[in-house]
Formats: sequence, C-alpha cells, structure tokens
Amino acid sequence: MKVFNSISEIRENLNQLRKEDKTISFVPTMGYLHEGHLSLVRYAKKNSDVCVVSIFVNPMQFGPNEDFNKYPRDEKRDLQLLQQENCDLVFIPSANEMYGSDYQTFVKVKKYSEILEGEFRPTHFEGVTTVVLKLFNIVQPHFAVFGQKDAQQAFIIQKMVDDLNIPIRIDVLPIVREADGLAMSSRNVYLNEEERKQALCLFKGIQLAEKLFNEGERDAHKIISEVKQFISQHDLAKIDYVEIVDKSSFEKATFLFEGKEYYLLLAVRIGNTRLIDNTILNLKK
Amino acid sequence: MKVFNSISEIRENLNQLRKEDKTISFVPTMGYLHEGHLSLVRYAKKNSDVCVVSIFVNPMQFGPNEDFNKYPRDEKRDLQLLQQENCDLVFIPSANEMYGSDYQTFVKVKKYSEILEGEFRPTHFEGVTTVVLKLFNIVQPHFAVFGQKDAQQAFIIQKMVDDLNIPIRIDVLPIVREADGLAMSSRNVYLNEEERKQALCLFKGIQLAEKLFNEGERDAHKIISEVKQFISQHDLAKIDYVEIVDKSSFEKATFLFEGKEYYLLLAVRIGNTRLIDNTILNLKK
Repeated sequence: MKVFNSISEIRENLNQLRKEDKTISFVPTMGYLHEGHLSLVRYAKKNSDVCVVSIFVNPMQFGPNEDFNKYPRDEKRDLQLLQQENCDLVFIPSANEMYGSDYQTFVKVKKYSEILEGEFRPTHFEGVTTVVLKLFNIVQPHFAVFGQKDAQQAFIIQKMVDDLNIPIRIDVLPIVREADGLAMSSRNVYLNEEERKQALCLFKGIQLAEKLFNEGERDAHKIISEVKQFISQHDLAKIDYVEIVDKSSFEKATFLFEGKEYYLLLAVRIGNTRLIDNTILNLKK
Repeated sequence: MKVFNSISEIRENLNQLRKEDKTISFVPTMGYLHEGHLSLVRYAKKNSDVCVVSIFVNPMQFGPNEDFNKYPRDEKRDLQLLQQENCDLVFIPSANEMYGSDYQTFVKVKKYSEILEGEFRPTHFEGVTTVVLKLFNIVQPHFAVFGQKDAQQAFIIQKMVDDLNIPIRIDVLPIVREADGLAMSSRNVYLNEEERKQALCLFKGIQLAEKLFNEGERDAHKIISEVKQFISQHDLAKIDYVEIVDKSSFEKATFLFEGKEYYLLLAVRIGNTRLIDNTILNLKK
C-alpha cells in the first residue's frame, strides 16, 4: 500500500497504472474509518484493479460554528485498517496542498444544496462538491463509492456528475449499523453513555416509520408526525428535520405512491452531537 | 471531418482515439468563426493528432438583456472553414443536449468573475466556466486553446483548471486583428459603417498606451486617463472600463514595475455593440 501527500506524486503513479489499463476505484473519506467506510473499500477493491482511498478532513465543508477542529482523526489506525483491506493507494493531502493560498473556484449543485441538510448547513454541500470534484480530477477513477448514510450527499454528487458530464460512475452502498442499530458515523465518538443510548431514537424512529409504512400508511405527513413525536420523547434529542422525499428527485412527498421509492431522512441533535440517518421506503420491503 | 451533436457519440469516438494513444486538442467556440478562431484551430491541429472544435452559443453566459438571440450564427460556413483547416471532430450540441431539463450545477471562480467584465456582466463568467468544464469533461483533451482577446476569460479558465486540478493544459494565443487593427470578433458584424470606423478607437487607444509606456510612463493612472480621454473624443463610443492589471494576478496596477507584465484591458460600447480589446505591456516590447 502506497501513501501519498502530494497531488503530483499520486497523479504520476495513477497515470502509470492507467497506461497498464488498470481499473481504478475511489473511496473519498474524512478518515477516522469505521465499518461503514470499510464496506465501501471492500466493494471498491473487489470491483477494480486499483483501489484508491483519500483521507481529508475538508475544512470547506464545515460551517464556522461546526466541529472541524474537534472532528476525530487517527491517521495511524486508518492506515492499518486500509492495509488490512488491501487498499492500494492512500491519498492524505494537507489543506494547503488542496487549497493553496488563493483558492477561488467553487462548484454548487444549486437547488439540492439548499434543502434538508443545506437548510441547517448552508455552505456544506458547496464544500463537498468542490472537494469531491477536485479529488475526482486528481484520481480520475472509473468509479467512486459513497455511503447511503449521507443520502443527500450521494444524490448531489450524482447530480453534479450528470450535470458536468464527469466520466465517473457513482456507486452508493447501504448503511452499516452497530449491533443495536445505530448508524455508524465518525461522530458517534462524541456521544457520552446516556447520549449513546438516546441516539438509538433515530434508528427506532426509522423502524417505526417502516412499520407504519408496511401496515399500509401512505400519508407521508402522518408517518413523519409519528416519528417526530417518538423522537421528541427523548429529553436529549432535538430534531432538525424528519422528512420523506422522492428518492429520484429529492422532492418532498405527501402521498407515497406504489412503485416509487422514497427516502425517510432524519437529522437529530443528541446533546451537542448532530446525527443523521435514513432508510428507503418502497413497497417491496 | 466528423460532426457530432450528441455527447455520447463524440465520447465514444474520442474514447477509441484515446485507446490509440492519440493526442487530443480542443478549441471551444461560439461559432461564426473568423481568423482569430482559425489561428487557434491551426495551432491545435499542428500540436496534436486529433483536433476537436466545439460550436455552442452558450445561453448561460449571456445576461438577460444581452445579445444571445441575435448572436450571429452560420453553421454551414463554420463547417466549411473547419474542413479547410483539417479539423478532425466538430461538436455542435443543442442547448437541450447540454443542459437537459433540470440543470443545477454551476462552477464559479469567485473573485475574478466579479471584476472588470464581471462588473458589467455579473453572471457571464459563471456561465463560461460551467460550460467550459462540461466541454472539458466531454472531450477530455490534452490541451485546450483560447484567444488572448478574452484575456480575463483565459485567466479565469486557467485559475479554474489550477483550483479544480483539471488535467488539461491551457494555451493562450495572440489577438488576430483586421488590416486596420480592429481585433477580430464575431460581434464586429453588428457594426454599421460609421461605427466600424469609430470602433478603431480601441486599437488606437492601445497604441497610444503602448507609446506612452515605451516613452517611459510608469504611472498606470496617467496611461488610463490618456486612453480614456482619447476614446471619449469619439461620439459613438461609451467606455465601460479601461484598466491596467498585473498579468499574473489580475490585480489593478498603480505603478508599472520593471520585469512584470501587465494587461491593458478595454471595454467600449460603440453604438449598441460592446467591444473588448487588450494588449500586454512589458519592458521588452
């Protein structure tokens, strides 16, 4: 496994591999890897000749009052885990390597960056799409892999790829959960014991929504209300949003039609930790 | 020479050429080709195996009160000219092929898109960088060629390429002028006989600036004042701006230092036609 900090060096290496006609896969991460990330790496490795993982805590996608400085980092452990998964190349640039001294270029997927997560994190997705496009241009993979946990992020990246004609396939893999159902997230480390218990209200809220849906409830508003009411019973939980959107358009749903797929999306603050989770609602579940 | 209207078809063709290890050059244009464009095509052709030219009057880079609808178009003549230059592939997409029905992704080189041309055309450069990035992703050339006539555009595209790590070289070629010195432009066709005469004030203003500079004037403000005064003597001319900027940073210059290069940039409306022109000021001229 080769580790690179420099854009020009990983590029040179990748150019050589491209000449040898290798299929290149790419998993962009912010490090502090968990089983969710590793499931993406395994998939990438299995479906390509060369698996590239980037670790970059991207300052541009954090708001001024967000957790950039305290975001958990453990490069040594990350590298051990990636080594175990037979990852081929790891790219760990500095902020200076990525943005230099007069950075000016920003990519925005307008409409979809302003709703849901975007309402609570107004500059977040612009930071994400900008860094992802940079990483795509550096790595030039055949496909890139993202987790469904950040469903809106995956949707926005697919939309950027379509709109900008980026010749890269985007694959989205299922959420990986802890034994009790909590969606894996690098931010779970922020939770104290009581918060960790109450954090389960996101997953239990999802289960409640799935139960209502499977029992025949098709009124999105009713499902959302019940989930909100359930989560509100937890004294450490503050809901940012619970919404149901059409999976293919991210438009808010009112009635859930047969044959269509929907995302139930949740963002809940547990104490000072903001968690997101989601599930796909469809009639085949 | 092959002509394509479809993204997928030109892509397929180019992928085949890439497999054969051909060097690919790219000249993006809005058509209505003149000797300025053709000089770029000749350079591209000479320095690559496969020369791709696009013709697309990009609605996104025109403001609501600008000349998108009346912008001159002559596809048949353009194709004849490109054929004569032994251009290999021509890409002529429709607006629908480029932007579909729910286009949302925009690329902006912030600081540099708001000054000079950007002050008078506030959404212009966002439209330019967005379409150029799309075209770059479709064609994936080794290098792309732009004209110095649109000096700020070329600067912004180079900045986008640097910031977004786009693996494409940008070459900028000198302005081509009519026999009397008027910079070639598709918009020159808008000028009536009297306007055509007065349009020469841009080039003559440039010559005046060069004369002052070569005689030792190093005060940017004095040069600008004299050029403005000269142009103002023409009753059909209305100045949008005359500025001198550092060629490497596009920052306004006050004193012209030895060993540095500067752009003198002009935008002047002659009747209803907005013309731009520029020259490089340096001590070797």
